[in-house]
Amino acid sequence: MIKINENYIRIKNNYLFSEISKKVNEYKNCNKDKNIISLGIGDVTQAVVKVVIDAIHKATDEMAKTETFRGYAPYEGYDFLIQAILKNDFINRGIFVESDEIFINDGAKSDTGNIGDILGHNNHVAIVDPAYPVYVDTNKMAGRTVELLTCSPENCFVPMFPKKKADVIYLCYPNNPTGTTLNSEQLKKWVDYALENKSLILFDAAYEAYISQSNIPHSIYEILNAKKVAIEFRSFSKTAGFTGLRAGYTIVPKELITKTSFGEKVSLNTMWKRRQSTKFNGTAYIVQRGAEAIYSSDGQKQIRAVIDYYMENARIIKTNLELLGLTTYGGINAPYIWIKTPNTMTSWDFFDLLLNQVQIVGTPGSGFGEAGEGFFRFTAFGNRDNILEAMFRMKKLSEFY
Amino acid sequence: MIKINENYIRIKNNYLFSEISKKVNEYKNCNKDKNIISLGIGDVTQAVVKVVIDAIHKATDEMAKTETFRGYAPYEGYDFLIQAILKNDFINRGIFVESDEIFINDGAKSDTGNIGDILGHNNHVAIVDPAYPVYVDTNKMAGRTVELLTCSPENCFVPMFPKKKADVIYLCYPNNPTGTTLNSEQLKKWVDYALENKSLILFDAAYEAYISQSNIPHSIYEILNAKKVAIEFRSFSKTAGFTGLRAGYTIVPKELITKTSFGEKVSLNTMWKRRQSTKFNGTAYIVQRGAEAIYSSDGQKQIRAVIDYYMENARIIKTNLELLGLTTYGGINAPYIWIKTPNTMTSWDFFDLLLNQVQIVGTPGSGFGEAGEGFFRFTAFGNRDNILEAMFRMKKLSEFY
Repeated sequence: MIKINENYIRIKNNYLFSEISKKVNEYKNCNKDKNIISLGIGDVTQAVVKVVIDAIHKATDEMAKTETFRGYAPYEGYDFLIQAILKNDFINRGIFVESDEIFINDGAKSDTGNIGDILGHNNHVAIVDPAYPVYVDTNKMAGRTVELLTCSPENCFVPMFPKKKADVIYLCYPNNPTGTTLNSEQLKKWVDYALENKSLILFDAAYEAYISQSNIPHSIYEILNAKKVAIEFRSFSKTAGFTGLRAGYTIVPKELITKTSFGEKVSLNTMWKRRQSTKFNGTAYIVQRGAEAIYSSDGQKQIRAVIDYYMENARIIKTNLELLGLTTYGGINAPYIWIKTPNTMTSWDFFDLLLNQVQIVGTPGSGFGEAGEGFFRFTAFGNRDNILEAMFRMKKLSEFY
Repeated sequence: MIKINENYIRIKNNYLFSEISKKVNEYKNCNKDKNIISLGIGDVTQAVVKVVIDAIHKATDEMAKTETFRGYAPYEGYDFLIQAILKNDFINRGIFVESDEIFINDGAKSDTGNIGDILGHNNHVAIVDPAYPVYVDTNKMAGRTVELLTCSPENCFVPMFPKKKADVIYLCYPNNPTGTTLNSEQLKKWVDYALENKSLILFDAAYEAYISQSNIPHSIYEILNAKKVAIEFRSFSKTAGFTGLRAGYTIVPKELITKTSFGEKVSLNTMWKRRQSTKFNGTAYIVQRGAEAIYSSDGQKQIRAVIDYYMENARIIKTNLELLGLTTYGGINAPYIWIKTPNTMTSWDFFDLLLNQVQIVGTPGSGFGEAGEGFFRFTAFGNRDNILEAMFRMKKLSEFY
């Protein structure tokens, strides 16, 4: 008889964003005349920049001719993209990474989820809380014990070390959903913890392009010896509007060595290569060409303009919400503004209030973990007019709380 | 301390096709003047057809404008593509499938690998042998016991039932690598076996577009009650030259219900939806538009012309090899020709002979499992000139065996 993975029974049936979209659709069906503004799911809204569009068109034309057609991509990604990443995201920042430590993927979500394939079920996993639900859900799906590391205004959103020694630690900075960051000293403490306890840090840097302050590390590999303990996830989704195009990359350093239960040395880089060559066939060639284009000088200018646009949205949201007396966090080095709900409302109550009274969709903080209860996330990824309209509506909302 | 998934230690370090490409590269480095012809990895070579190219260009232009930009795709895929699949691949063939049973992916390899996420580690798995290495490797990675179902000339490549009751059964028809098929009666026996034993059939139909004979089922759902026991994998890779574009789909019927160890009913469709929404963010919008285009009337004609071209290659290979006295299988309903190596050579010895003497790359049968030892796979996916040249060289080879 088919035996299922029974760990699935222990997780909630709905993924957070599926749940939100269900609620929104129900509301829409009953209120067809209402204009809903979404500051909820962290999806970008602005056009893909010109260099990327041009590169995709060009690559598509190559696919149209047998002489220049490309079939299966290398499992680890095309060298042209790996070299562009290496030079621009690492060497130019003084960070030493090698080309065979970079694995191109179809977006950070896949790899932050799939990385668990190479890890044992018996790891104790520490995860910052609140966090992107994928970390907790995928570990629960694999039957691992999870310890949440509370991040709240009380500890300035800097997580404390786990109570039980952690084998695997998920850090996400700039943080989704709180928009907060760790500076180099704070991050160094975690690298040192991992070195001491032989733990693995899974560092999600999907939002590094939004960092505006100079003392915030863009990569965990800016910290001494981090290559011995950390895997880093990067994404083109938010950096260059690739949510609908699908590309990102993962760094698995060759210095990342652990031992089997019988003392044999194992390289996580080798294991990940084996995993990817067995279960993945690369992301589309035309998309990899698009990603390469953002590293040209025009590309860098064009994506910077879009990031600046979103960060101006963030400033508008943050300023306006504070004027309304709400307490906000983040929004300086990340496109997320994390607010304390007024009058100690629950996150979902505040969600319902916003949807029903002013037709604004945000994300309930509790959806990101226990420590998110009583908080709410706004994203800065909208169109400017929508953001301004949403802020106007928020003023009307204040009479309800 | 980091604990790895130690099942990885038990699998071979190299994925078959990585191993072949390593060998070929070594040969190339020492023999720069030689012109190698690859009839090895099952990758297509012909240009992507015009309707697909046009659709991708159009969709790319949509991404270039904020008004028509598309971000995250629905986890299960865009409805426009699901509806096109439903109508053309199923309803028009008289097969009843519902739209929420179809899940678009980035290629069949991902899903045939990842489907194990929702299955327990304690399933006994039966896999046709020889087979696509992903089935065995991914199950060994998950620590499941695997029983191989030998397919050889002795049983006309029709697998016998497993010795131990199987919870999960992998069938691939038209078969990769042997190019052989099951007719409806033969397939019905497996559906009946699964119904009786409450097993799950994972049916890989990646090559269904190559079926030329009328009594061969294109989908397992042509068999009565198969929706109660089978998941089917489809791919645009070989159907429409998408190996470098990445799209396929999986059917997980809602009738596919099993029970947990404590007797609770579980829907595999619901579980797969949860898996995909947690670990996958859809395949590129522009690629989904490309896939949709193949279902237009022009699209069907254009992809048919490419399939016919490859199948004419198959005919040329099969005929020529038989003229050389080799025994061949397949090549009628599949783009693969499976041959018995001459003089009972091992598969890898024949690989080396071909590479060194006539610079032809094929795939050693033993790479597909024990039952493949002593066999060799040629693919029909090359350019016609290369195929003809390869057949010419094969004539020279006969003096070596």
